Amino acid sequence: MTELEQIKEDLVTANKVLAYHHVVDSFGHVSIRHPGNPNHFLMSRARAPNCVEVIDITEFTQTGDIVGHNPGKPYSERFIHGAIYEARPDVMAVVHNHSPNVVPFTVQGKKKFRPIMHMCAPIGNDIPTWDISHKFGETNLLVTSMEMGRDLAKTLASRTVSLMRGHGSVVVGKSLRDVVFTSIYMEINADMLIKAYALGGDDITPLSDGEVAANTKGRAGFTYERGWENWCRLVDRPYYPAAWEMGPGFSKTDPTG
Amino acid sequence: MTELEQIKEDLVTANKVLAYHHVVDSFGHVSIRHPGNPNHFLMSRARAPNCVEVIDITEFTQTGDIVGHNPGKPYSERFIHGAIYEARPDVMAVVHNHSPNVVPFTVQGKKKFRPIMHMCAPIGNDIPTWDISHKFGETNLLVTSMEMGRDLAKTLASRTVSLMRGHGSVVVGKSLRDVVFTSIYMEINADMLIKAYALGGDDITPLSDGEVAANTKGRAGFTYERGWENWCRLVDRPYYPAAWEMGPGFSKTDPTG
Amino acid sequence: MTELEQIKEDLVTANKVLAYHHVVDSFGHVSIRHPGNPNHFLMSRARAPNCVEVIDITEFTQTGDIVGHNPGKPYSERFIHGAIYEARPDVMAVVHNHSPNVVPFTVQGKKKFRPIMHMCAPIGNDIPTWDISHKFGETNLLVTSMEMGRDLAKTLASRTVSLMRGHGSVVVGKSLRDVVFTSIYMEINADMLIKAYALGGDDITPLSDGEVAANTKGRAGFTYERGWENWCRLVDRPYYPAAWEMGPGFSKTDPTG
Amino acid sequence: MTELEQIKEDLVTANKVLAYHHVVDSFGHVSIRHPGNPNHFLMSRARAPNCVEVIDITEFTQTGDIVGHNPGKPYSERFIHGAIYEARPDVMAVVHNHSPNVVPFTVQGKKKFRPIMHMCAPIGNDIPTWDISHKFGETNLLVTSMEMGRDLAKTLASRTVSLMRGHGSVVVGKSLRDVVFTSIYMEINADMLIKAYALGGDDITPLSDGEVAANTKGRAGFTYERGWENWCRLVDRPYYPAAWEMGPGFSKTDPTG
Repeated sequence: MTELEQIKEDLVTANKVLAYHHVVDSFGHVSIRHPGNPNHFLMSRARAPNCVEVIDITEFTQTGDIVGHNPGKPYSERFIHGAIYEARPDVMAVVHNHSPNVVPFTVQGKKKFRPIMHMCAPIGNDIPTWDISHKFGETNLLVTSMEMGRDLAKTLASRTVSLMRGHGSVVVGKSLRDVVFTSIYMEINADMLIKAYALGGDDITPLSDGEVAANTKGRAGFTYERGWENWCRLVDRPYYPAAWEMGPGFSKTDPTG
Repeated sequence: MTELEQIKEDLVTANKVLAYHHVVDSFGHVSIRHPGNPNHFLMSRARAPNCVEVIDITEFTQTGDIVGHNPGKPYSERFIHGAIYEARPDVMAVVHNHSPNVVPFTVQGKKKFRPIMHMCAPIGNDIPTWDISHKFGETNLLVTSMEMGRDLAKTLASRTVSLMRGHGSVVVGKSLRDVVFTSIYMEINADMLIKAYALGGDDITPLSDGEVAANTKGRAGFTYERGWENWCRLVDRPYYPAAWEMGPGFSKTDPTG
Repeated sequence: MTELEQIKEDLVTANKVLAYHHVVDSFGHVSIRHPGNPNHFLMSRARAPNCVEVIDITEFTQTGDIVGHNPGKPYSERFIHGAIYEARPDVMAVVHNHSPNVVPFTVQGKKKFRPIMHMCAPIGNDIPTWDISHKFGETNLLVTSMEMGRDLAKTLASRTVSLMRGHGSVVVGKSLRDVVFTSIYMEINADMLIKAYALGGDDITPLSDGEVAANTKGRAGFTYERGWENWCRLVDRPYYPAAWEMGPGFSKTDPTG
Repeated sequence: MTELEQIKEDLVTANKVLAYHHVVDSFGHVSIRHPGNPNHFLMSRARAPNCVEVIDITEFTQTGDIVGHNPGKPYSERFIHGAIYEARPDVMAVVHNHSPNVVPFTVQGKKKFRPIMHMCAPIGNDIPTWDISHKFGETNLLVTSMEMGRDLAKTLASRTVSLMRGHGSVVVGKSLRDVVFTSIYMEINADMLIKAYALGGDDITPLSDGEVAANTKGRAGFTYERGWENWCRLVDRPYYPAAWEMGPGFSKTDPTG
């Protein structure tokens, strides 16, 4: 198996893992920047994540045109992905979802979406909500053009997450495992946070900015692999181990290696 | 397989898909207008949706009489279906359910049932609650006569959904896939909406009327098929693709085809 | 298979059905009055409901003594069952459970437990909470003697359900199917009711006494069988159809038979 | 199979049972004091609980060093376990988790975490929340040194549970079955308690101290085995029965043996 073939296998796995964790259902999508061409990205044709196979993986330009192999109609919201890869060279993978416990936060402004558990820290403490109507009026809320995608990317800016009013969210990552991890724990955090607000009202204690930073930089392959192996097993997919690459940020967390 | 045979197969699938998504449990039912006779409709005999087989599909007149093949006792609430087909020539399929997150909305008037996510837009912003006691006094709440069914159809009027106090709801659609889709996302919307109200109190932002309209007219075979293929797989039923028939309303959503 | 053997098979099925619906977990139990001796009852030895087999079914006197076949240690709370059979000749089956959405109602007095959906009507509008400490002081809350069981039966009186503070509830029925049905829909009702109170505050509309009565007397074999067939399938147990025995109370519900 | 081999099999089972009940997901861990050397403990290498096999079980000193067989990288938070075994000779097993309904309690102070159902009594009425930042400032919240572990053990003191702010909790037990039992029912209690507070506000009735004591001392092998047999079956693991050892505290509960 070539490196590209294995990446496509992992992308299929990511689709099924996100569906297993209810981050996506029949809708929502996950992409990765093309490993051989940073101006292109890989994503399934328009198919429910749980049904995606390697043959469905399509190569796109950042403006959403299909390159080469064309397995069928693409997602109409592929511009979300293209516009973010265009604006954010640091981003290697993108998830767009209708994560069920996150959507309630997108339609109100009284209670902020904040990380309250260390596993969920990478979503950060400053999470904007993009409202498509501010610039595009009354639409069906779908991001179906580069102009819309770029407006969303502008709201996202350098962050990890942007909520999307009445719709869902977009999550970005440094790798496929990273973006899947953040998406799963964002949904878990949302469930916990709704309950924390129910108990504590406005008096809850989210992670501090320093704690968010310490968690985010300290997260390494070690952590991702523990989740990824388990998720592969849960969705009955082959597990291809990745290097742990413990960066310097990880040394404080586990000095014994 | 004839067209009618395939339609019956899809009706069996619809029963199992609704059960899988907890829209129905051992109770609740789904029907379609007879493709060869608009004055008749097709529905299972009185059996739990998850157990329904093709042999159980029965043909009914709009007043609830069995035509031809009689596999056993019919649902005592078949008058819900008949009265709606009678009043609404545009309706091709009907679901009656006790959707668990929707029922709480039927027994209170403080918080309105509104769509807060684009997938759920077709339920609309004007959802009435039919109360059987207003006309029929203290009953067991079941709709067991054409008189009751017609009263419910009158409350439903030209809408997609009517809640039923202390009971559940009725959902109508332009096709079997349409009514299943709306029923599933109505339950999802109800779960999200309860949480949105918990967070935001009365300050939440439902979809606007223009957004509801844009979503509803823009929904085409493309979207239904993505869900239907996935649901067939989840309930282990054969998937018979339907034509996508992208209407003019869909062009804005996905100009690239 | 003799009638008694089939009854024991159905009792095993009831155990698994209640576990499937989370009414019981590793704890909780279901019994039936002995069909051949109204002074005795049948119940598993002390085993998790999901593990119960026919060989575990034990015959008990109403004071909790084992008669004949002794497969092992009995439930220490068998006195709940005995005391109710003693006090209530009309009761043919009993469930004791820690139903997870019902327990929250047992530890507070602000929000009453009421039926809000027609399927749940048999629990009634007058549901007491038995508090073991009122008569027995600080215990481990288990009902481990006939004295305790009789005190609980006194609180239950002629009702269908009594909550038990900090513990769970007891549910009685006219048959095994009846008590399983009521137990499942009581748990569903509790989940819906918590959400209804969250939405409507104190302004919710439970079923009226007349609606409760109409539902309860109208419930017949027809309804029970639809659930029971489905539940047998869900827990992979054989389904033994029972007679529908439509009583006079059912005629209004379904005049077409 | 030697006694040690069977203990390792049970430790594998405990990992899977905790994952099945959502007490742990890809993260969290369970350990037991080494039966042959009270200064050592046994725990998996750093692997998702659901994936753990006997070959992953590692022997550790109380300061977290690996003894003998080294199957791979250890959990970076093994110091939680070591420090508690060091401080509490009575503790035979430890679980660290991010139990999803418990975490909300850790980030607010308005609503106390209390047992409201008899099965959950062993968590006790006096449950502290350890905040890593009080002594260690802004960290990634992980307990990655003996100094941190000892600080947590000091907050735990002689109790059964300590919450950990923004993280999860630690639970200790007199045996592996005991700690698994308490962990599962702590999660169930948290779900029930959130709902009880929603219904009753501040007016809820937790178990009294006497009721907690009566339940905790009365819990014996009889109870543990009923759960353990069921859980083994649910996660498809072999069940090795343990002696029931009914202590004197159990006699009141079940005088008939």
